[in-house]
Amino acid sequence: MIIMGVDPGIAILGYGLLKMDGNKFNIITSGAITTESTMSMPERLSYIYEELNVLLSKYNPDAYAIEELFFNKNIKTALTVGHARGVAILAASNHNVPIFEYTPLQVKQAIVGYGRAEKKQMQLMVKVLLRLDEIPKPDDVADALAVAICHGNSSKYSNLFKL
Amino acid sequence: MIIMGVDPGIAILGYGLLKMDGNKFNIITSGAITTESTMSMPERLSYIYEELNVLLSKYNPDAYAIEELFFNKNIKTALTVGHARGVAILAASNHNVPIFEYTPLQVKQAIVGYGRAEKKQMQLMVKVLLRLDEIPKPDDVADALAVAICHGNSSKYSNLFKL
Repeated sequence: MIIMGVDPGIAILGYGLLKMDGNKFNIITSGAITTESTMSMPERLSYIYEELNVLLSKYNPDAYAIEELFFNKNIKTALTVGHARGVAILAASNHNVPIFEYTPLQVKQAIVGYGRAEKKQMQLMVKVLLRLDEIPKPDDVADALAVAICHGNSSKYSNLFKL
Repeated sequence: MIIMGVDPGIAILGYGLLKMDGNKFNIITSGAITTESTMSMPERLSYIYEELNVLLSKYNPDAYAIEELFFNKNIKTALTVGHARGVAILAASNHNVPIFEYTPLQVKQAIVGYGRAEKKQMQLMVKVLLRLDEIPKPDDVADALAVAICHGNSSKYSNLFKL
């Protein structure tokens, strides 16, 4: 099963593609789609959408995992991230890839084992679980890989539940 | 010049297409793209995107006008509307239609003549300016037509400024 995780944003959208064989995760690729603040919002959204379409066509994931967002910051940020997140969901939806949402709590529980884990602990576990030499950078990439792993573990358990 | 105005939302996205001849506006069509709350967010976004693509292909507008959003409500609403707005911007961007943003203040000033006008006054002016028998319903359609008129008036003035 190939899982694509995304951490959406307008300036940086992190993504990670994992292959899950049994209990083991193998990283296929990861990276960030970045847009400059000098670009207009329409240009940025079109660029993000196009790049996601390229990834979706190339890797044809079986599942697409995205974090459910909670904001305690300002409303303007929520609206802007909402634009990027809407386009990220649309891209996967138009490729007929099943989309799964996980809360930050669920992601932390799936990766570290408890929901109040620090960001740093989660990033370290992503590195360990994917047998990487370093913590993926920027944070958005680590977060995208984390939500992909979360889906892998969740679907593993949901398969078990079906037995 | 054909102007398409949109008032984005997930449940209801209002749209209006106007033809501007000199100082006169003629309505081509208007309506609402609606999605049921029983649909998933990916389904809703795909449906909205598809319907907007149909309208953009059919009417081939010269300009696409959308309101700049300000929220004093909750952050969850901003994030949700952000999803729909992102997709609405993407659709026009992918059709290479120039996109223009106007603040609610600018829209009210363009339609009623002053920025603190009531919603009802604005809707009445939309009815008068477009020589309609009734105020367009739901509010989202009236708002979409209002921002389209706002763009028409603004581009008229910006043309004047160029002389």
